Amino acid sequence: MYLEKINSPEDVKKLSVDKLDILAGEIREFLVNSVSHTGGHLASNLGVVDLTIAMHYCFCCPRDKFVWDVGHQAYTHKILTGRKEEFDTLRKLDGLSGFPKTNESKYDSFNTGHSSTSIAAAIGLAKARDLMGHTYNVVSVIGDGAMTGGMAYEALNNVGRDHTKLIIVLNDNQMSISENVGAMSKYLSELILTQKYMNAKSGLQKKLKSMPVGGEQIYNLLYKGKGTLKNAIMPENSMFEHLGIKYVGPIDGHDIKRLVSVFNRAKKINVPVLIHIITKKGKGYEPAEIMPSVYHGVGKFDAKIGVLPSTDKKETYSDVFSRKILEMGAVNNKICAITAAMPLGTGLSKFASLYPKRFFDVGIAEEYAVTFAAGLAKGGFIPVFAVYSTFLQRSYDQIVHDVCIQNLHVIFAIDRAGIVGDDGETHQGIYDISYLAHIPNLTVMAPKNKAEFEGMLEYAVTLSGPVAIRYPRGEASEIMIAVEKPIEKGKAEYIYEGEKIALVSYGAMMDEAADVYSCLIEEGYNPTLINARFASPIDTGLISDLAKNYKYIFTMEDNIYSGGFGALLAQRLCEFGVKDNVIYNFAFPDMYIEHGNRNLLFDRYGMSAEKIFQKIIQIIGDNRNG
Amino acid sequence: MYLEKINSPEDVKKLSVDKLDILAGEIREFLVNSVSHTGGHLASNLGVVDLTIAMHYCFCCPRDKFVWDVGHQAYTHKILTGRKEEFDTLRKLDGLSGFPKTNESKYDSFNTGHSSTSIAAAIGLAKARDLMGHTYNVVSVIGDGAMTGGMAYEALNNVGRDHTKLIIVLNDNQMSISENVGAMSKYLSELILTQKYMNAKSGLQKKLKSMPVGGEQIYNLLYKGKGTLKNAIMPENSMFEHLGIKYVGPIDGHDIKRLVSVFNRAKKINVPVLIHIITKKGKGYEPAEIMPSVYHGVGKFDAKIGVLPSTDKKETYSDVFSRKILEMGAVNNKICAITAAMPLGTGLSKFASLYPKRFFDVGIAEEYAVTFAAGLAKGGFIPVFAVYSTFLQRSYDQIVHDVCIQNLHVIFAIDRAGIVGDDGETHQGIYDISYLAHIPNLTVMAPKNKAEFEGMLEYAVTLSGPVAIRYPRGEASEIMIAVEKPIEKGKAEYIYEGEKIALVSYGAMMDEAADVYSCLIEEGYNPTLINARFASPIDTGLISDLAKNYKYIFTMEDNIYSGGFGALLAQRLCEFGVKDNVIYNFAFPDMYIEHGNRNLLFDRYGMSAEKIFQKIIQIIGDNRNG
Repeated sequence: MYLEKINSPEDVKKLSVDKLDILAGEIREFLVNSVSHTGGHLASNLGVVDLTIAMHYCFCCPRDKFVWDVGHQAYTHKILTGRKEEFDTLRKLDGLSGFPKTNESKYDSFNTGHSSTSIAAAIGLAKARDLMGHTYNVVSVIGDGAMTGGMAYEALNNVGRDHTKLIIVLNDNQMSISENVGAMSKYLSELILTQKYMNAKSGLQKKLKSMPVGGEQIYNLLYKGKGTLKNAIMPENSMFEHLGIKYVGPIDGHDIKRLVSVFNRAKKINVPVLIHIITKKGKGYEPAEIMPSVYHGVGKFDAKIGVLPSTDKKETYSDVFSRKILEMGAVNNKICAITAAMPLGTGLSKFASLYPKRFFDVGIAEEYAVTFAAGLAKGGFIPVFAVYSTFLQRSYDQIVHDVCIQNLHVIFAIDRAGIVGDDGETHQGIYDISYLAHIPNLTVMAPKNKAEFEGMLEYAVTLSGPVAIRYPRGEASEIMIAVEKPIEKGKAEYIYEGEKIALVSYGAMMDEAADVYSCLIEEGYNPTLINARFASPIDTGLISDLAKNYKYIFTMEDNIYSGGFGALLAQRLCEFGVKDNVIYNFAFPDMYIEHGNRNLLFDRYGMSAEKIFQKIIQIIGDNRNG
Repeated sequence: MYLEKINSPEDVKKLSVDKLDILAGEIREFLVNSVSHTGGHLASNLGVVDLTIAMHYCFCCPRDKFVWDVGHQAYTHKILTGRKEEFDTLRKLDGLSGFPKTNESKYDSFNTGHSSTSIAAAIGLAKARDLMGHTYNVVSVIGDGAMTGGMAYEALNNVGRDHTKLIIVLNDNQMSISENVGAMSKYLSELILTQKYMNAKSGLQKKLKSMPVGGEQIYNLLYKGKGTLKNAIMPENSMFEHLGIKYVGPIDGHDIKRLVSVFNRAKKINVPVLIHIITKKGKGYEPAEIMPSVYHGVGKFDAKIGVLPSTDKKETYSDVFSRKILEMGAVNNKICAITAAMPLGTGLSKFASLYPKRFFDVGIAEEYAVTFAAGLAKGGFIPVFAVYSTFLQRSYDQIVHDVCIQNLHVIFAIDRAGIVGDDGETHQGIYDISYLAHIPNLTVMAPKNKAEFEGMLEYAVTLSGPVAIRYPRGEASEIMIAVEKPIEKGKAEYIYEGEKIALVSYGAMMDEAADVYSCLIEEGYNPTLINARFASPIDTGLISDLAKNYKYIFTMEDNIYSGGFGALLAQRLCEFGVKDNVIYNFAFPDMYIEHGNRNLLFDRYGMSAEKIFQKIIQIIGDNRNG
């Protein structure tokens, strides 16, 4: 009843506080219904419905700025800021993004997607506000999972120093995507427990005051000192207060009235405040409350029944990795596995339960993960860091400085490489070849199918230096398994040998390359199909063969154009010497690719087999006529 | 007397504890004398002489593993581990490295160079030790400056969780390279002050115990509780103990006897211990004690007089930046400047004192710096992040995810690009074009001389998206200032127009390119000399001109070969269509370049004007004959 009348935050403010719980219920129903049709992030969004309502009730967007850490929990914010009607297009091509986007709405103040950035961005906004002489509020909403990222700490360390007015909402659901880890998490749990202590303390105060001798002095020493002792005796705030941040909490994050009252007070405080709220992931939808990990990111499902176990027997690349690392870990007790808070997504859960001592979930801390892996490798182990392509971006320096300079045997199992689709521009894994293939000592590979993936994992274990293997989201390809050849360092695999036209690809794009090959065969051409296998080192034999024997050299990769395999190959072809060779690199353009269905995006950017084939025919035609 | 007999840590152990102070004095004399001849890091090394002696006295290297954070403070460690005689080759080509290097000595357990990595690496080593069933000690030595880096916190968050035995020595000299910043630093200072409180506490305990009524109960509640209250009342350890780490300190880091006793006790503790020691940078050499920043990294100097103010009037690129940002900041109050703990090195000190509100020293926190800059930009300001090329590696994800996806107007002033020389492989700025030029929306430039640098800074302010300008260490070039043309987006500058041979370079390599040009002219050729100016976007007009009109295209850049300007240009030349063009990219090989004099390194890797010229003559000869 209430939700249908809400088209902007102003409409929320028109409701009396006691109606907000009803609104929250309606939003939860809307969310479950809507996401069951489109897929999307559900559990985290159900957890912050009450929080988001309270925020819009107390603050004035877009004047006040909200920065949503990670950003996948901003659905209620989108619903309340006039985007309700567009939820049937959620995460679809040209539809509503699953993350805050400044170019989607004036109510979104900062784009997010990766973890632990919100406090840093919010401090920037707050400093700009102060320098401009404005007075708006800046609110960062950050989960306890994101608090395990070093950037969040760097930000806390800076915000505490110079007393910038800022509200940090620590949304503590005691888990990040799956289970939370680390000492900070333990500390936050203790804060919750110490509410009991607070009551005990107030008893102690009374006792001291009523004592006949010395009680008053001790009371003063304990509670009225210069600050140090007084703060120190309050464990619920000591850590943040030590960092110069006023701590408020813990507060029930589903008690809207309480939240409204806290936010209204927080607005008046002119120093950084951290409001610690406790929420339940999946709140209000029983299946999601019970299994929040399952409802973190979901596809379509029946809202009445909930998500059913997948009956699809086709293995994804993550499944293949999961199975293979288990198999390798069984025979080689030097193999360790590392994840940055994604044991489920990367396929490490089974390894974790079978080999708990050799499994490390380090929290959302990709930088630490890599340098820690370097230490493990130096200590004689073979660490495998399973990580999404987009999140490994955060470890560029550690890969170079801690792993590759020392040429340590660390294996990077890079999932979600290439186009990931629904999550959009902040999550596309189309930069990894550009940021990895130039790194000295690092071997970079990508498998065309599940058999080659297994082969590459086995091969990676036999090497002595750092290795990266990148593979996409979704079903593992089974193309060309019959023609599989053994993996040799830096050697390409010739699949079909023809003449004049060389199709050179690697990894998941071999699917498209194989289709292009078939189309060309049908068209009467006799091309050669080559699986490069290695983006680094690049096969020197391949280079001379291509330069000498092929008029047309077409590369295809699901990476951006600049700095990818195509660029590195072109450079080496030029150095070798090209005469009248025609060289063309099919790759994603140098831009940020929006969210949407993978196939639609491939088509839009000329990367489908069909579009590539047409372009090749055109190029061949141009060169015949020209 | 003692030092000359010390050739390994075993020799240190032969001395009685009361002789160690004498040894420390001898080492300080040796350090001052030696570094005054070779140059190097002095103040930090003088600060840890006593600590290092105590460590080698108590632990057994190489069985026990030391990980030196940053690593420029490991000179005493090198002296005590058999490398004393090589100190006259310090930081010289093929000489002793200024940092720990596993391939230099079995006593170096892990390579370092960048900040805040040591705890992560040490946890890796410690976990490997435990899994192997070994019992050696792992000791990380980390400065208070490095504690502002998020990675250090990620590591603390992990080490505290699972009780891994590890000794962390927090070497607190209350400054990183210049002055320390942030709430953590303030917190550490408070710990030092609270020693007084500890004495007060022990008074309180006595008072409580002696109280006639209720004192015993309160005593038990305060000091014998389940842990929370007991820990909380001890401000000197609360923050680390909250993270699950045993805190010991603060301890005078120049009191060797005390350190020996603490280390001998710490060895027996089976959980992570943080030993907080207080040292003085420059200790024992008065000029360095008074001006530690001046003696952080020094060139040759007279040990009796100390470092004299430079009489060299030639401006470095950092000087030009310093002057120009001041000038621009005066007329445009939207310009802000950010440094990650290097106001002096990057040339921001003057800006800091003139415009303190628009200046931000965020500590050693490059990731935070970039996302914070994104927030400032979103809030209407033009932040300029001045940073060394090698340290910006740590912000790759933030550059992509927080700045460039949103196309925010952040300016990266990238100092120490190209070969830095003495600091060696961990510090060479030869990867930045490869990790930056492929990033969508990011403009990447490099100036050939001081006038062009000023022009580029002015131009960067007029743009609306992200811009990076990279420039090298040392004297600003004054070549070709007379022919300077205005900067246009993505347009190369033709310096001298000739025919057949095109020399294409940019940035500092234009010095070499100009020399090569002169040599070719002398040899009777008439080449064209082109300053590309932009590594991204690459001038499309340049591409067609090169492909159509030049048989020989030679690019030159002080970046690695793969992923650099040469690779991106070759790719575009291929796409445009090359016929019988000869294309050759002069760049540093895809490897880690060791420390040593810049010119010697240029020569060794074929990057001097002389070597490039010879190679060009050879290539032209080959193609004539071939």
